[in-house]
Amino acid sequence: MPIPEAVSALSSLLGQRLSLSKPDLEAHGRSEAYHPPTPPDAVAYPETTEEVQALMRICAQHGCPVVGWGAGTSLEGHALATQGGVMVDFARMDRLLEVRPEDMDCTVQPGLTREGLNTELRTTGLFFPVDPGANASLGGMAMTRASGTTTVRYGTMRDNVLGLEAVLADGRVIRTGGRARKSAAGYDLTGLFVGSEGTLGLVTELTLRLHGQPEAISAAICGFPGIGAAVDTVIETIQMGLPVARIEFVDALTCAIFNRQSGGDFPETPHLLVEFHGSETGVAETAERFGAIAADHGGSDFRWSDRPEDRTRLWTMRHNAAWSIVAAHPGRRMWVTDVCVPISRLAEAVEATQADLARSDVPGPILGHVGDGNYHVVLMIDPEDPSERAEAEALAHRMVERALALGGTATGEHGVGLGKRGYMAAEHGDGWDVMGQIKQALDPHNLLNPGKLVPDRN
Amino acid sequence: MPIPEAVSALSSLLGQRLSLSKPDLEAHGRSEAYHPPTPPDAVAYPETTEEVQALMRICAQHGCPVVGWGAGTSLEGHALATQGGVMVDFARMDRLLEVRPEDMDCTVQPGLTREGLNTELRTTGLFFPVDPGANASLGGMAMTRASGTTTVRYGTMRDNVLGLEAVLADGRVIRTGGRARKSAAGYDLTGLFVGSEGTLGLVTELTLRLHGQPEAISAAICGFPGIGAAVDTVIETIQMGLPVARIEFVDALTCAIFNRQSGGDFPETPHLLVEFHGSETGVAETAERFGAIAADHGGSDFRWSDRPEDRTRLWTMRHNAAWSIVAAHPGRRMWVTDVCVPISRLAEAVEATQADLARSDVPGPILGHVGDGNYHVVLMIDPEDPSERAEAEALAHRMVERALALGGTATGEHGVGLGKRGYMAAEHGDGWDVMGQIKQALDPHNLLNPGKLVPDRN
Repeated sequence: MPIPEAVSALSSLLGQRLSLSKPDLEAHGRSEAYHPPTPPDAVAYPETTEEVQALMRICAQHGCPVVGWGAGTSLEGHALATQGGVMVDFARMDRLLEVRPEDMDCTVQPGLTREGLNTELRTTGLFFPVDPGANASLGGMAMTRASGTTTVRYGTMRDNVLGLEAVLADGRVIRTGGRARKSAAGYDLTGLFVGSEGTLGLVTELTLRLHGQPEAISAAICGFPGIGAAVDTVIETIQMGLPVARIEFVDALTCAIFNRQSGGDFPETPHLLVEFHGSETGVAETAERFGAIAADHGGSDFRWSDRPEDRTRLWTMRHNAAWSIVAAHPGRRMWVTDVCVPISRLAEAVEATQADLARSDVPGPILGHVGDGNYHVVLMIDPEDPSERAEAEALAHRMVERALALGGTATGEHGVGLGKRGYMAAEHGDGWDVMGQIKQALDPHNLLNPGKLVPDRN
Repeated sequence: MPIPEAVSALSSLLGQRLSLSKPDLEAHGRSEAYHPPTPPDAVAYPETTEEVQALMRICAQHGCPVVGWGAGTSLEGHALATQGGVMVDFARMDRLLEVRPEDMDCTVQPGLTREGLNTELRTTGLFFPVDPGANASLGGMAMTRASGTTTVRYGTMRDNVLGLEAVLADGRVIRTGGRARKSAAGYDLTGLFVGSEGTLGLVTELTLRLHGQPEAISAAICGFPGIGAAVDTVIETIQMGLPVARIEFVDALTCAIFNRQSGGDFPETPHLLVEFHGSETGVAETAERFGAIAADHGGSDFRWSDRPEDRTRLWTMRHNAAWSIVAAHPGRRMWVTDVCVPISRLAEAVEATQADLARSDVPGPILGHVGDGNYHVVLMIDPEDPSERAEAEALAHRMVERALALGGTATGEHGVGLGKRGYMAAEHGDGWDVMGQIKQALDPHNLLNPGKLVPDRN
């Protein structure tokens, strides 16, 4: 039996750091998502690249599946060991290895979380901007090509991972990219690994791009008569080149829930929340220009602030959105899904999704990183009710089909995992087979996160 | 014989658009670089994706090499058919297919040049920012992962190609990426193809990100007592988050040549040339702040302007640099090479290169996109003198070795081609073999631009 033999050999390698305890296996068999639990056969806690390499070689020798684990915050079941095997938890590889302020970059181990990194960077004048909401591990964020509220200004993980170290399926260790800000020297292996969801290698080190903490930040919130008006405001803001750092959409339902749960007094209409980073005069000018654009599109109830404490209060609705939604639906669980469309089709996509939700019994507030054309529906289902699960699945399915028909993608930032794999053929055509050929070339025995992302082998 | 058979079949497919004329073959056997001419066996001028696909299938059937050709401006011999075969010239696939102003993107055929695109975009308020100097084709720019003067603000081709269509070695046509601004749906095939130098497929269509034409532009030029002072000014400018659109370095020798050739009156010291894009008040504030940083580092002879005609004059030295250098060295030819290092090591790298040049008889002015840590040496050699060729090769070699030792890359933007292939193993280690495995998986018979970028097959 390949898996028991690998587990036994790994036990000799890692001692107590190979866990077979039932609670540990169960904790690594759950996800934030709606997928059934699938505990792995063992959980390994390596401390060095050399240990990851030795572990990989043992698993390769025995044909045992290997799945990486960061903070367990992914939303599509990416890290579930659906074919059993060894879960590699990077919790003990969580150090900030080096910060180079002059180059505005740093090197980290994959288990460090984004909040952990930013805490360590606090005194440097620098910060790491990618913010998916959860306090995810940086390795996990790289593997899912995470993004979030600041992407419109600072980019996704694709833009902020400069290089990485990875252990391949055959135990080779490669270093991709580097510390030069750009390179034309060969295939972009860094870009290939970012977003590969653990199917090409185990990432053991990341070099990340950092950004200067802005001198001034101002924030604003504004209500709109409809989704179209809000989206047109976004389009015009971006076309004018206004340097927005965040531009977020919340729908009328989210406002209503927030008012009810937290005593807010927002008009129950679609809202945009924006944040500007820059110099004092720069952010003041940008806020004024944004205000004029919003007013042209019927924006009202405009509130803005450049003081940190007011900013935080202003954004409370967004920050607490998920919590408010959960609290408003006792006994229900979140089934979150995301798509991304060309921004010119965003209003149409969101409106069609809302109309679809209006015909359903499953509540589904909509939130979006609208500067990117990316939006989420937070479906609140009774997990014990198979008909609600089926209904959520059907709603999510139609949302994806609609996004693809509008020239968009099945997932803007949550990734493929188990939830979106069924759409890969429709989205990529023969390109999906090309992904499978690359996987086959680098992992011919299908050891790394098998059953995910690429087509099944014949 | 595989090549004659393929040529004969292609002749039936393309008629007059398969050229065997000697001048045509010779024109497609030269490069801007210092490599010996190697004419292909035929030049094909397809007009549609379907023709490229049919062409590729014929070449696959006969085992005939296929090399893509854009504007012939690459600098490392990327497009030379060193193993013979068919050159695919995209001159007849040069249309702007669609512009979508609301989404700030467009779709083009690969033969369209960047200047051609920007001329067509003139009335839209949008522009395509990547500027490598030459009026390169957009397909060629994608294939070499081109960048240039505006990269510090707008990124390289990696950042500005949203998706592409490519014909693979077996004749399949794939579409990668798409029009959504971000996606987490699988391997980043777009990023894999950008910079692949024609070794993975023939690109037949590109979707490009566009940017709003800035409301205001201001430009400045400033002399410095030494390279260190100039580079420290760059580092501080970027750390402060000043939104520079271009920040270029020219060395004292380039200034001297420009003064001599064009009657300039610049102090013969290292200079920085900068450009700021933004609102009227924004660029004025940025220029003032930049001036203060430069002055702190001993910057002097500060000239700036926000009027288009003055800006152009101000930047004449940079725009005419290559021309001035060539004119100053009659009978000699350029041997240009580029490297990129972490910006903290840039002063050290440039100074060591200058010291090396001072010991040599080959003149070599230095220019750089210093915001990226990228610089070029323009070696001026007598092409008939083997000892000068050997000396240029040795100087370029030491420049690359030094860049790699400082944590940089063998090429920041010119690409691998023939000139940098010898450094791929040193730069990437086992990563270079991984590139070879990907190539083998997608082009098992090594038909696409054989002998380039990846390791030779065993």
